[in-house]
Amino acid sequence: MAEKLTSQSKDYPRWYNEVVQRAELAENAPVRGSMIIKPYGYALWENMQRALDDMFKATGHSNAYFPVLIPESFLKKEAEHVEGFAPELAVVTHAGGKSLEEPYVVRPTSETIIWDTYRRWIQSYRDLPILLNQWANVMRWELRPRLFLRTTEFLWQEGHTAHATQQEAHEEVLRMLDVYARFAEEWMAVPVIQGIKTDREKFAGAESTYCIEAMMGDGKALQAGTSHDLGQNFAKAFGVTYLSSEGKEEFVWATSWGVSTRLVGAIVMAHGDDQGLILPPKLAPHQTVIVPIYRGEAERTTVLDACERLSIPLREKGVRVHLDDRDQYRPGFKFNDWEQKGVPVRIEVGPRDLAKGEVCIAIRHNGEKHQEPITGLAERIPQILEETQAGLYQKALDFRRENTHVIDSYDDFKARINDGGFFLAHWDGTAETEERIKNDTKATIRCIPFEGDDTPGSCMVTGQPSAKRVVFAKAY
Amino acid sequence: MAEKLTSQSKDYPRWYNEVVQRAELAENAPVRGSMIIKPYGYALWENMQRALDDMFKATGHSNAYFPVLIPESFLKKEAEHVEGFAPELAVVTHAGGKSLEEPYVVRPTSETIIWDTYRRWIQSYRDLPILLNQWANVMRWELRPRLFLRTTEFLWQEGHTAHATQQEAHEEVLRMLDVYARFAEEWMAVPVIQGIKTDREKFAGAESTYCIEAMMGDGKALQAGTSHDLGQNFAKAFGVTYLSSEGKEEFVWATSWGVSTRLVGAIVMAHGDDQGLILPPKLAPHQTVIVPIYRGEAERTTVLDACERLSIPLREKGVRVHLDDRDQYRPGFKFNDWEQKGVPVRIEVGPRDLAKGEVCIAIRHNGEKHQEPITGLAERIPQILEETQAGLYQKALDFRRENTHVIDSYDDFKARINDGGFFLAHWDGTAETEERIKNDTKATIRCIPFEGDDTPGSCMVTGQPSAKRVVFAKAY
Repeated sequence: MAEKLTSQSKDYPRWYNEVVQRAELAENAPVRGSMIIKPYGYALWENMQRALDDMFKATGHSNAYFPVLIPESFLKKEAEHVEGFAPELAVVTHAGGKSLEEPYVVRPTSETIIWDTYRRWIQSYRDLPILLNQWANVMRWELRPRLFLRTTEFLWQEGHTAHATQQEAHEEVLRMLDVYARFAEEWMAVPVIQGIKTDREKFAGAESTYCIEAMMGDGKALQAGTSHDLGQNFAKAFGVTYLSSEGKEEFVWATSWGVSTRLVGAIVMAHGDDQGLILPPKLAPHQTVIVPIYRGEAERTTVLDACERLSIPLREKGVRVHLDDRDQYRPGFKFNDWEQKGVPVRIEVGPRDLAKGEVCIAIRHNGEKHQEPITGLAERIPQILEETQAGLYQKALDFRRENTHVIDSYDDFKARINDGGFFLAHWDGTAETEERIKNDTKATIRCIPFEGDDTPGSCMVTGQPSAKRVVFAKAY
Repeated sequence: MAEKLTSQSKDYPRWYNEVVQRAELAENAPVRGSMIIKPYGYALWENMQRALDDMFKATGHSNAYFPVLIPESFLKKEAEHVEGFAPELAVVTHAGGKSLEEPYVVRPTSETIIWDTYRRWIQSYRDLPILLNQWANVMRWELRPRLFLRTTEFLWQEGHTAHATQQEAHEEVLRMLDVYARFAEEWMAVPVIQGIKTDREKFAGAESTYCIEAMMGDGKALQAGTSHDLGQNFAKAFGVTYLSSEGKEEFVWATSWGVSTRLVGAIVMAHGDDQGLILPPKLAPHQTVIVPIYRGEAERTTVLDACERLSIPLREKGVRVHLDDRDQYRPGFKFNDWEQKGVPVRIEVGPRDLAKGEVCIAIRHNGEKHQEPITGLAERIPQILEETQAGLYQKALDFRRENTHVIDSYDDFKARINDGGFFLAHWDGTAETEERIKNDTKATIRCIPFEGDDTPGSCMVTGQPSAKRVVFAKAY
């Protein structure tokens, strides 16, 4: 049996790395800051992709694909955009055995190449809106990479839409933020706070950035998705205009929005425990694993036959079942392996239980273990999966509540911020105060939330007026 | 109305480019040799991906993801591999504002980074087989790029498997070749010839390369998929050994196999005609388009309502239906638009037909047009789609038969090779003769086919003995 996982309380970052590797989600690659996403981790990502893609299509979007290489000059057309991304670019200078006349950058995000294209696609209001999404790899040269959370190459989707009016673009920004919030809560079982970023934290090139923020198991925040109102910035940078129905030449309004493989890290840290990963059933590659228990060849045949028979009605009910028939491992090893990998339900099938018409069920997220009659199992397992999905969400919500603090004194804030959690505090709205708090404590304003207490007050640092409380936290 | 398409007989390459662009499959990007895959083209690719991915999973494979950047030194570890790919590499020399100590190449294919990883994953026979696939973008700097057929960046899947025995690896190679052949014939409706490449045409680093070859509408060949038996070449280059069940250290056996977005080009050229694209129903983004015909607002409402009602039972039967309710275009424009885009069936719905309980059906691939009662339409359309799928395959098969020639004289060969088609001829098995034929005629040996006439003979060029006829053609 492998060594025990480092406990969360002892060393949370180390626990995270061990879980990601032992659950076989990913490992470091021999390329600076890059990772190899292993089959189990990729299967989880595929389930996330499928659910998100369905949601994008249900809201009227289509997929397309734009080049991974972008002429360096394109990046420079939007001043804030290049300033934000220049330090993180990887650059192709040679190709086909020759030095290139103009270098290409590996896309860190695709606004520039897409708006260069939209200029050719958009002439009249009849060409609008354009509602596109792209599933792609992107590259941002990270100095302190961490598996899934911050890697030089990552996989993501990036939506890029073009609209005739500011109002329509704004509605799109909020529609997609809502899609992300629903995905996080309904599929990942991770509660999120929706809000708007401060100017300091917004996307380079955006008018405003909206986000969903989630609380991880150590009380730190993780930005789980962003939706940007790009105004007419990219339209102006790339000269994208349209002829309105009144015959006037107008600049086009833009949005972009994205989530990435960092959401895998969010699932690990929102639900995991000292035994390893805990996966939300709706996204788990295996929702149920069946572990046969036997001694000798005769028992093996009987038990495996029974396992196969058990799995058929479960599959018919749409349950993703995996039968672990590996002969070289003992049941105890398998129990530990699948617990570590966060499979929601384990069914143990042995000859004595079979004789009684029973199996043993172990539920990952609450550690419950009990006997269950085989009759009715195909009805009972889907119920347990639903209960698990709801239970995980509730547990994460309770945890967030317990670790969210209303705070009015900057001294208190400084004393408590290292314990983790979200701090709802008043802020005077200036970048100076925001910067000072970050320098003092490493905490940032995660967002100005849509919901919550709207009572005005005074900034915890300067005493200046504040319209409402904002969310402070240390963040991934 | 737009200008007519260039006809195939007048200028086939120009016809191809016009179809790809007018059907809105793709366009050239402002990055040398790269393309932008437009939503309609990408939707077609997504359907292809889904079908292939299901077939890969049904044959026991899982997906994973490896880095897009590969240390340049990795490429050099397999001598033939680097020789084959070096001239086509794009190289990242700078990142994060600094010059890199070791340059990275943008993957042209992933054998090297994957076999470097397999070295860490494989210790014992218990770790085998590894059956992985990756969906990814790859880059090969092409001097003469053509949309879908040959682009510097393209999308593909690459399977990479590791086996304990040569026999098992060989079975995998043929299994995946068969998957590709079934996909081409059953989904793309494109008949293919399965066979083995000559040494001159095999993959750089393979022991042998198997392929499927399809005939395009101009009689040229298109290599539609390859499956490589890599022997122990990559295992030796990367030091990947395993401890056998007998306790012996052995090198691992490898395969790799891939198909790419060039298959979109194959569909265009296998089925298209002078009116544009013709899509096989199983892969078409829209299997049926409904075009409403009306004058004035009152008729519009009635007709659109009827169209909506028509589409419901069709959707319930699993038909991908698109209702073209664009108000700014006249029906004639829409007919032409969807014909150009290759939608298998068009349903025209006008007030007079509705009054008679009928609609007009136009079938793209054979140009048939007739009245059809609305009652039973939801049963009739799926039948027409099946007939279309079968009809397209049969037509392509007949075309290939008509354009496949058994030939024994090199003079005849030279006289006829420019007319297009496959030529079954005897070859002495030497690279010299192969080279000479290519220099004389630009034709290559597409494959040594599995099936067909097995009678020995003598080489059409040298008169030396030949075991069987091989397939010569000019190729994309």
